[in-house]
Amino acid sequence: MARKLRPSPKILTKPDNEDDFYHEPGTIPGTIIIPTDASPPEMTLIDYSTGDVIRKEIKTPEECADYLDTASVSWVEVQGLGDEDILRRLGKVFDLHPLVLEDIVNLVERPKIEEYEDYLLIICRMVVPKEKRYGFYSEQVSLVLGKNYLLTVQEEPEHDCLEGVRARICNNKGIIRKRKADYLAYSLLDAIIDGFFPVLELYGERIEELEEEVMVNPSRQTLQKIYQVRRELLQLRRYIWPQRDAINSLIRDGNELISEDVRIYLRDCYDHAVQVMDMLETYRELATGLMDVYLSAVSNRMNEIMKFLTVMSSIFIPLTFVAGIYGMNFNTDKSPYNMPELNWYWGYPMCLAFMAAVAFVLVFIFWRRGWFQNFSQINSDYKI
Amino acid sequence: MARKLRPSPKILTKPDNEDDFYHEPGTIPGTIIIPTDASPPEMTLIDYSTGDVIRKEIKTPEECADYLDTASVSWVEVQGLGDEDILRRLGKVFDLHPLVLEDIVNLVERPKIEEYEDYLLIICRMVVPKEKRYGFYSEQVSLVLGKNYLLTVQEEPEHDCLEGVRARICNNKGIIRKRKADYLAYSLLDAIIDGFFPVLELYGERIEELEEEVMVNPSRQTLQKIYQVRRELLQLRRYIWPQRDAINSLIRDGNELISEDVRIYLRDCYDHAVQVMDMLETYRELATGLMDVYLSAVSNRMNEIMKFLTVMSSIFIPLTFVAGIYGMNFNTDKSPYNMPELNWYWGYPMCLAFMAAVAFVLVFIFWRRGWFQNFSQINSDYKI
Amino acid sequence: MARKLRPSPKILTKPDNEDDFYHEPGTIPGTIIIPTDASPPEMTLIDYSTGDVIRKEIKTPEECADYLDTASVSWVEVQGLGDEDILRRLGKVFDLHPLVLEDIVNLVERPKIEEYEDYLLIICRMVVPKEKRYGFYSEQVSLVLGKNYLLTVQEEPEHDCLEGVRARICNNKGIIRKRKADYLAYSLLDAIIDGFFPVLELYGERIEELEEEVMVNPSRQTLQKIYQVRRELLQLRRYIWPQRDAINSLIRDGNELISEDVRIYLRDCYDHAVQVMDMLETYRELATGLMDVYLSAVSNRMNEIMKFLTVMSSIFIPLTFVAGIYGMNFNTDKSPYNMPELNWYWGYPMCLAFMAAVAFVLVFIFWRRGWFQNFSQINSDYKI
Amino acid sequence: MARKLRPSPKILTKPDNEDDFYHEPGTIPGTIIIPTDASPPEMTLIDYSTGDVIRKEIKTPEECADYLDTASVSWVEVQGLGDEDILRRLGKVFDLHPLVLEDIVNLVERPKIEEYEDYLLIICRMVVPKEKRYGFYSEQVSLVLGKNYLLTVQEEPEHDCLEGVRARICNNKGIIRKRKADYLAYSLLDAIIDGFFPVLELYGERIEELEEEVMVNPSRQTLQKIYQVRRELLQLRRYIWPQRDAINSLIRDGNELISEDVRIYLRDCYDHAVQVMDMLETYRELATGLMDVYLSAVSNRMNEIMKFLTVMSSIFIPLTFVAGIYGMNFNTDKSPYNMPELNWYWGYPMCLAFMAAVAFVLVFIFWRRGWFQNFSQINSDYKI
Amino acid sequence: MARKLRPSPKILTKPDNEDDFYHEPGTIPGTIIIPTDASPPEMTLIDYSTGDVIRKEIKTPEECADYLDTASVSWVEVQGLGDEDILRRLGKVFDLHPLVLEDIVNLVERPKIEEYEDYLLIICRMVVPKEKRYGFYSEQVSLVLGKNYLLTVQEEPEHDCLEGVRARICNNKGIIRKRKADYLAYSLLDAIIDGFFPVLELYGERIEELEEEVMVNPSRQTLQKIYQVRRELLQLRRYIWPQRDAINSLIRDGNELISEDVRIYLRDCYDHAVQVMDMLETYRELATGLMDVYLSAVSNRMNEIMKFLTVMSSIFIPLTFVAGIYGMNFNTDKSPYNMPELNWYWGYPMCLAFMAAVAFVLVFIFWRRGWFQNFSQINSDYKI
Repeated sequence: MARKLRPSPKILTKPDNEDDFYHEPGTIPGTIIIPTDASPPEMTLIDYSTGDVIRKEIKTPEECADYLDTASVSWVEVQGLGDEDILRRLGKVFDLHPLVLEDIVNLVERPKIEEYEDYLLIICRMVVPKEKRYGFYSEQVSLVLGKNYLLTVQEEPEHDCLEGVRARICNNKGIIRKRKADYLAYSLLDAIIDGFFPVLELYGERIEELEEEVMVNPSRQTLQKIYQVRRELLQLRRYIWPQRDAINSLIRDGNELISEDVRIYLRDCYDHAVQVMDMLETYRELATGLMDVYLSAVSNRMNEIMKFLTVMSSIFIPLTFVAGIYGMNFNTDKSPYNMPELNWYWGYPMCLAFMAAVAFVLVFIFWRRGWFQNFSQINSDYKI
Repeated sequence: MARKLRPSPKILTKPDNEDDFYHEPGTIPGTIIIPTDASPPEMTLIDYSTGDVIRKEIKTPEECADYLDTASVSWVEVQGLGDEDILRRLGKVFDLHPLVLEDIVNLVERPKIEEYEDYLLIICRMVVPKEKRYGFYSEQVSLVLGKNYLLTVQEEPEHDCLEGVRARICNNKGIIRKRKADYLAYSLLDAIIDGFFPVLELYGERIEELEEEVMVNPSRQTLQKIYQVRRELLQLRRYIWPQRDAINSLIRDGNELISEDVRIYLRDCYDHAVQVMDMLETYRELATGLMDVYLSAVSNRMNEIMKFLTVMSSIFIPLTFVAGIYGMNFNTDKSPYNMPELNWYWGYPMCLAFMAAVAFVLVFIFWRRGWFQNFSQINSDYKI
Repeated sequence: MARKLRPSPKILTKPDNEDDFYHEPGTIPGTIIIPTDASPPEMTLIDYSTGDVIRKEIKTPEECADYLDTASVSWVEVQGLGDEDILRRLGKVFDLHPLVLEDIVNLVERPKIEEYEDYLLIICRMVVPKEKRYGFYSEQVSLVLGKNYLLTVQEEPEHDCLEGVRARICNNKGIIRKRKADYLAYSLLDAIIDGFFPVLELYGERIEELEEEVMVNPSRQTLQKIYQVRRELLQLRRYIWPQRDAINSLIRDGNELISEDVRIYLRDCYDHAVQVMDMLETYRELATGLMDVYLSAVSNRMNEIMKFLTVMSSIFIPLTFVAGIYGMNFNTDKSPYNMPELNWYWGYPMCLAFMAAVAFVLVFIFWRRGWFQNFSQINSDYKI
Repeated sequence: MARKLRPSPKILTKPDNEDDFYHEPGTIPGTIIIPTDASPPEMTLIDYSTGDVIRKEIKTPEECADYLDTASVSWVEVQGLGDEDILRRLGKVFDLHPLVLEDIVNLVERPKIEEYEDYLLIICRMVVPKEKRYGFYSEQVSLVLGKNYLLTVQEEPEHDCLEGVRARICNNKGIIRKRKADYLAYSLLDAIIDGFFPVLELYGERIEELEEEVMVNPSRQTLQKIYQVRRELLQLRRYIWPQRDAINSLIRDGNELISEDVRIYLRDCYDHAVQVMDMLETYRELATGLMDVYLSAVSNRMNEIMKFLTVMSSIFIPLTFVAGIYGMNFNTDKSPYNMPELNWYWGYPMCLAFMAAVAFVLVFIFWRRGWFQNFSQINSDYKI
Repeated sequence: MARKLRPSPKILTKPDNEDDFYHEPGTIPGTIIIPTDASPPEMTLIDYSTGDVIRKEIKTPEECADYLDTASVSWVEVQGLGDEDILRRLGKVFDLHPLVLEDIVNLVERPKIEEYEDYLLIICRMVVPKEKRYGFYSEQVSLVLGKNYLLTVQEEPEHDCLEGVRARICNNKGIIRKRKADYLAYSLLDAIIDGFFPVLELYGERIEELEEEVMVNPSRQTLQKIYQVRRELLQLRRYIWPQRDAINSLIRDGNELISEDVRIYLRDCYDHAVQVMDMLETYRELATGLMDVYLSAVSNRMNEIMKFLTVMSSIFIPLTFVAGIYGMNFNTDKSPYNMPELNWYWGYPMCLAFMAAVAFVLVFIFWRRGWFQNFSQINSDYKI
């Protein structure tokens, strides 16, 4: 039983993505280092215009080169980063700056937006809630937005919240097929930002659970859970904060790749990002407040324990003293002053009565201080 | 009795409006999702000019179309969001952008202001104090301000603080009938911002109650109440903060729908929003300070308990030891050094006198440290 | 004695001015609501030029109308707000915007400055230290600065720090008689800002007292006092912060009612406001630090108490055990192994010697840990 | 011994300069109030050009009037403020605005820079470490920079860090003699800012001492020292913060009294001010962190004390109980079940063996929990 | 054993570089003070163009003068500051402003960028992780970027993270040989910023270790380690913060020494600096959170100890009292009411049975409160 309760350090799971991925200082800018456990890239091409849509898996980057020059919008999706050769060839097909390629592969890039001559690089972070309720998957999504194409690169093929956008294109829902690549980029950004809400909802529920746990039945695991929540909220904040700035600069900077029309939609997307941040901050403040409540719950429990000890000790210590008195061996024969009570007819009953009186007075004092109410309270609160 | 004191988790009521309402990531922008428990919409039209006023309930959005083109000001009120068809038809009558319609129905939109070609969208949050003193209702109010019309959409028909404005129009009080739709929009915004004051007043009173509770009779519920207040103040802050920014941008951005004249009034409204925020921040700091005071009250109480235990134990433990000494069974017959006191004529009285002296010295020491004052203090403070 | 020490909730006096004064949401902008306990207005006119000065009490607002058009500076002082009719007539005489009148009467307006066509509205908050050392009176002062007149409205006739300015005009001290109404307004603002210094000085002294109290003789009242100080400093901050901004905008915005010359003086006034804020922030940080010190003083005292209990218990518990051993009734006749010590010649003295040795060893251990130093420390620190 | 340890309230020495110096609200702007304990002014004139230097004490302000018009740089130093007449005459000689004179004499002016038509007023605060290691002297230095003169006014003649500059002029070290008054002003500012470093170094050392004290031997004085350090760092921050802003505005605002050349030097001076602030903030954070460490050290010590009490009580209480059992007086003659152990041959040894076994088991339990390691730790940590 | 656990003050190692290095206030600007323990300077020249590269050690600064005028890029590296004469001659060769030379030698300069007429001074701080895992070396690197030369000055020859850049030049890897001095400066800055990542990674691991330590086996050393981490993170923040600002101003200010092309690379470098700061802030918040967790772990442990004491005392104190009762010496012969139990046939067994019943009831109460679970928990958590 005790073994189960032992705080397992594994509760503090390392986040899914590691922050400690970095280049050796002094390496050539633009160096591509493939993470050892990267999935092999899966490439998909979705080429669509108002009337038509093609969706096919492609094997080599060069296959999509033909589609890039057409007037239709070409969305090239790459999922997985496990093949340096393919990535370099992709860079050639799309004519990418070496730094862009590095940013795409470097998995801990901060969300940002960078303008290049012919295209725009948008680096985002996508989060997807874990099935088992706690924590989230997170992966980097890089968007390269050109005049009539969009290249997206994701870390791995799983845990995606972009399926809705793909379906809208293929089934021609909404106006997406009538718009250009910038609207597609917006749709993806919107889906990514909106993907934070289900994750946040989980944390909202988790904080409510923790509130109840802290107030009704705080244990040492409670503290770890609160710390874990704070830690994960900190991580989420690090993802969303620069994302908001990136979207903002997309709206402000008059880059011609983004049409005026799409800017209105991006404003909506920006509002959602701000809302995510508001909720995050609120949750963080609640989690901090919970820590305080936990600490005082621990103090309160200590109070109860001490009160119990004090009541028990304070009642029995004087009584034991009285018993000790009459346990003394003074020789009653030598003097009438030597413990004459021992020889009284009513000696023992009177002694017991005196003890009972002392105990009663003490109990009365404790009762007046209201200490007994709390004992029953402990009883109902802290058991199992 | 104890059962009543048990901290009920229900004290932490979930706020009236839920923050976890959101679209599935990747849905089409402009998607309208009606909350399942939404009230059916009630529509009212108030059409007024300096001399005339019409107020009538309308059944279909199309009914008000005729009024929109006239020179008189038309205020179309929609309360309740339970009918998607009606909302879509409303959108058609007022020629609303799909995103505007989505924002109106999406109940957790952040307060904001957005300019469109022919109209201005203002999203606000209205709070109304609950009758039972604690907490507040909150609902989203969306204002669409056109040249000579105003469309307002509220979540539900109840808990409204706009009745005063309606009365002023119908009874022709003040100058509202002489002004345009922008003055009407200002009047509503003003009523919404002013609606925060009664809610804040309740929190002011609640904090004063908690101050007294913390200082005079802190219990475990006190802590929960403080946490609850902090939580609700956090929520209020999330409502008012963006509202202030929205009003500020209304004043600054020279939108032509707002006349110069009304801007002066809006400045007043902005001042009130800032004042609400000031008060909120002060209350939040007070609530945080109260948490500290509570924690030290708990520590103080522990101090009292320990002091009591220490006094009781320290006095009786030495006495019991003395009694124990004379309870030993050394054979007085074998040696004159074996507890000769037991056979002394004054042995027992001297022993008692010695004990009394020890007790007196200890009591004197405790008295000099001022420990007894506090006992009576506990007595008067913490009982019932 | 204990009764005196009981923490009276009245210590947390509600501040003199109430923050919960507000209009019913939805009332007509410009509505004047006279507080029920307002003093009846006393009006004074001071009309002066370089050579001449008239000071007289006036009964009706219309009396001062004649003076307003002359080249001399007319200062109309209104103290007390208890008469709506007079206030409305004042508004007419000075041709005030309805919102201005509302702001003047609304007693919890945030300090601010607002430009109107012909005049400038400056709302300030004046604080005056209470005679009984703790706390302060605060009242709103509204200044309406016109071309050659100044209207000031105060909440009530008492607790004023403007007497110096009046004296300077009447006695022709300094250059005030040679200047225009803008210099008069500056002089009043300067007196109001400088009025914060005596109040701050009191808090500086109070914090020093509390520092000594916390370190030498912390009691439960100490905590309440610290909290009270923090609370009042928060209030002062709410007063001075917007006042600083208002003065700043007076300097920056090139309003023609303020001459270039007076702007230099206002810069000085602004510096003082910033200085007040600096001091406030420092005091607030000190008060927060004091709370920490208090908490650790409480912990320290607990440490002392526990140390006392531990020393007493740890010394006497083993001794009592030894006494208990020799109080056992094993039959020494039945076996030579049954407590032969009881029959030894030196049994009792050896037993006492052993006890003394145990006690000495324990005392030595405690002494080496330095626990005894602290006892005497408690003694001198915490008594009375 | 204990008396020495008693926390003396004097430890919290009031800072050398008092913040509560202020004018009565409503006094005439430009009023000069001489502090009662001000030293009489000592005036020195240093007049220098590339080739020549004159240094002489002057008795009356008028003496230096002749030097002001020459092309050489005239540095008039005034140390001490105890003579209103001299200050007024100084104001006349240098043609100072009344507010400038007031600012110079008002000893708690916030560091600032103000431009007047013909001169620049720079108010600084100079700190000098105290000889006895703790704390610092601080005094206000006012610089009035004219075209070819510099007037500096210090509070008192002692505790100066400008001696290096004087020496450089008199001994013609560096380029100071080749430059104008603006370079002289820069040199003084630089010396004043650099004067913060020795003071900061002391606080750096003090914090390191406190770190060791907190971790090795925390006492109640430790807490007071930490608080004192925080308090003094707060004060330093109040001095340096506006100083940095003042220097910054000197660099930015294109005042013609400061040559382009000197601006480069001022940039260096600004960097040092920023560095001072960085260090201050770091020290403040360290001091705050120390408070936390102190609090947990107190808690840890309490833990040790309680552990000691628990070990002692838990071992001896059961043993005493066993002894108590065999101290009962049941009549062994009446029944074979009445304490037959008392008459057993091995009764007493078995009883002692049983007690030893109980004690051993308990000691083993405590040892397994690692409680004994800490006892020796207390021993070495907390003694003396 | 205990001796090893004693908190050694040396754990708080003083950082490698000292902050308390400063000039005596009032020294001549541009004064060079060589630190006493400075290494003698080692100078290297790397002169390269697209086709060619020369790398040689040089003995005197004048040796490199010839290379400076050629079109090829000359990188002069100076490592060590121990020779004032060489530094002055360097200053002459590169024609440096005296303040530049001072900044280069002053080892606690804040990272910054300063533009001079012909060159740009960039002051950076380089960190290199220590081999023994904890802490880091830090040294100042000064870059003087001219038209076709770069002068770098490091504090000492060891602990360098620039080796990669040197290798790239010598082995002609990447495009570095094709570019100018500005690209070289960028490469060095990039290597310096990237050098923070390995250091940060160590702190990430350290915090994870501390998390486990705090939750599983907190000791007093844990607290010191957390404090130490906070302290070092504070130091790192002081290094990276101004570095980011410096890079930012390099990008913004259109200095002609930096080509447009390199600015794109610098943007990447800036992003990394921001990322370092993000990670630092996260780590700092985690460390602060850990302190809270530690404090509550200490409280929890105290709870366990008190619970143990309370259980032991509460069970045995009543039993001892009962034993005390029957240890009293009332004379059973004098009265049938005087302790008749002593003479009962089943007296002793009944007495023991009663005691067992009392103990059982108390154990049952404690078990219902779930106190015993935690004992075993202590057992497994805190041992060793």
